[in-house]
Amino acid sequence: MEEMILKPIGTIRSRIKDPILAADAKDISLQCDMKEAREQVKELPGLVSEIVLHPGFEDLLDGIEDFSHLLVLYWAHRVPAEARSLLKVHPMGREDFPLKGIFATCSPARPNPILVNAVRLLRRKGNVLEVQGLEAIDGSPLVDIKPYLPFYYGAEGVRLPDWMLRAMQEIEGAEAPRGALKKS
Amino acid sequence: MEEMILKPIGTIRSRIKDPILAADAKDISLQCDMKEAREQVKELPGLVSEIVLHPGFEDLLDGIEDFSHLLVLYWAHRVPAEARSLLKVHPMGREDFPLKGIFATCSPARPNPILVNAVRLLRRKGNVLEVQGLEAIDGSPLVDIKPYLPFYYGAEGVRLPDWMLRAMQEIEGAEAPRGALKKS
Repeated sequence: MEEMILKPIGTIRSRIKDPILAADAKDISLQCDMKEAREQVKELPGLVSEIVLHPGFEDLLDGIEDFSHLLVLYWAHRVPAEARSLLKVHPMGREDFPLKGIFATCSPARPNPILVNAVRLLRRKGNVLEVQGLEAIDGSPLVDIKPYLPFYYGAEGVRLPDWMLRAMQEIEGAEAPRGALKKS
Repeated sequence: MEEMILKPIGTIRSRIKDPILAADAKDISLQCDMKEAREQVKELPGLVSEIVLHPGFEDLLDGIEDFSHLLVLYWAHRVPAEARSLLKVHPMGREDFPLKGIFATCSPARPNPILVNAVRLLRRKGNVLEVQGLEAIDGSPLVDIKPYLPFYYGAEGVRLPDWMLRAMQEIEGAEAPRGALKKS
């Protein structure tokens, strides 16, 4: 089969300069204290970032102004190559949690370190999109942008395991994570 | 920057053997009549597929049984290399619709042809996941699996433009597309 090589097509500009979670050949680890992490997660829904397309790719955006939400795929460029061989990690770098397979976690270190966010589109100015709610750190290479279609990307009756709810509640504060139910 | 090369980690097995939309260096085009396309779209929510991890990657799945829904990323392997340079296409291959930038469409031909679906996880058997609602065609290389977290992948108040609603209504039948509102 043909090799799966991604093309550089754009870059994300964000106030977030460093990842909360760093990865190495052994595990992922939290790079700040819980209070700082909580602040960042709290700010995320309101955070405004820019997606800047490289010259020659601007036409890809024609008609995108008509959509309210987008799905953004980007490359976790701060994950070192050796961390792509990890199979299990401590969720959110917490050693008090049991190791989980990476596909059961949101670890940025993954065999193919592509991260995905649903965001609100605020405006387009030429080759730049201004979006709200994007967690990408500054300088992340853009992989793809899709119009957000609930038919493909929405899910109803989502249930999450206790350990994930606990981790999310601790990082998001006292409230229940948005839209998630406890897995029965 | 380091090249963004994806690792082969698994394959999707599906009853869908061919893509509805084919791509070449000029555009995308519907590969069947509207009736057939409508049948396939109608069957999709109930369609059961398998995601088979390559040997050595099974541990990535540990703990995934605890989630009700997953986000699956896969490579559109039937898109020829030359179609990755397209900037605009006729949505759903319909020449009666105006050309749109690819990031405003669901075209499988994209600079980085990674497709995304939210699916229901039915069961895990070793290195195989049985999932419901995956649109990938048989043989699609797996790129990533993520636990479905509404906080990252859900969106509320999604509005779609008239042309997209019209295209979706025509392919889905008389009903309004699931979860989508008309963009005001």
